[in-house]
Amino acid sequence: MAFVTVSVAVSVDGFMAGHNQRLDKAFGDGPTDEIMRWMMETREENAAEIAEIVDADAFIMGRNMFSPGRGEWDPEWTGWWGEDPPYHKPVFVLTSHAREDLPMAGGTTFHFVTGGPHEALERAVKATGDGRISIAGGATTINQFLTAGLVDQIVLHVAPVIMGAGTRLFDGVPAMRLQLLGSRSASLATHITYKVVR
Amino acid sequence: MAFVTVSVAVSVDGFMAGHNQRLDKAFGDGPTDEIMRWMMETREENAAEIAEIVDADAFIMGRNMFSPGRGEWDPEWTGWWGEDPPYHKPVFVLTSHAREDLPMAGGTTFHFVTGGPHEALERAVKATGDGRISIAGGATTINQFLTAGLVDQIVLHVAPVIMGAGTRLFDGVPAMRLQLLGSRSASLATHITYKVVR
Repeated sequence: MAFVTVSVAVSVDGFMAGHNQRLDKAFGDGPTDEIMRWMMETREENAAEIAEIVDADAFIMGRNMFSPGRGEWDPEWTGWWGEDPPYHKPVFVLTSHAREDLPMAGGTTFHFVTGGPHEALERAVKATGDGRISIAGGATTINQFLTAGLVDQIVLHVAPVIMGAGTRLFDGVPAMRLQLLGSRSASLATHITYKVVR
Repeated sequence: MAFVTVSVAVSVDGFMAGHNQRLDKAFGDGPTDEIMRWMMETREENAAEIAEIVDADAFIMGRNMFSPGRGEWDPEWTGWWGEDPPYHKPVFVLTSHAREDLPMAGGTTFHFVTGGPHEALERAVKATGDGRISIAGGATTINQFLTAGLVDQIVLHVAPVIMGAGTRLFDGVPAMRLQLLGSRSASLATHITYKVVR
């Protein structure tokens, strides 16, 4: 059985990003820097959690996490992460616009999936065998996987900020019991791990 | 200066109660028992946090936390907590319907305030001097105090459940920086303390 995990930074009020995500503001409007400060300013203190975010055999993400563009692809766009993205594994990007596979340096290859979450998961499982698959984001994509009952574990990195608006983790996700596995507070985030109870 | 604190149990997705709160279901629809399990089933493990919730010199709450009724008062209704409520201090209840003071056993007296949050806070400050004032709930009342910039500290008791619907803490509250003061996970809740940054 593949193991499907989510590991994301959220504000205290559950937002992963603000509204109006765009090229010059990847996380949109509002105090979004606060959500990521623990990763930027206190890397050593949070080394284990930062490593864990990209510790998977394959990744699935929504198109809006891969690109600020909408509609037809700009073939020049190869993601936010430069030549050598931090994934070093297959990344399946959900989109309604087909695109050729995009191999990058360091072992990351972006595959573009037009058949929805189940197809993306199927392809990720096939690529990894019984591997660890991370639903990388954004909130809308994670909420789809949670709603479909496809997630085994949720790790939240809760940053000390109220955003007030944006795209919210758990939005539209139905009632669901979790098991609290543990937590740790660093200076700028509380890391909490949950198992989804089936 | 009075010190204004909030200390409340929430689901992972930020809900304090479900919809349709009523006499036979004080916390409304949905898996609301899961939000309170840590208080009910693991009292010893969480003794410090449970004591802290009622460790204040005065309390302010919304009418819906005091009573399942709406509209004119039923004079028979004296709160959810029996003869000796756990507050043992003045409790200011926000309402649009005036009512005589209601002294209970053990030192709790309910005062009914029709002038809104600022008047309730003014009366609580006057009653306590430079005391510790807890905004006890529900979510709507706490959100009013947060939005008005009247809260100094927020303690969240985050229970391992996704509610999916209900009344949400931080709903409509504008962007605000917090300082993470610390956290602790027990079996059934993660307790996190924040200072509101002015």
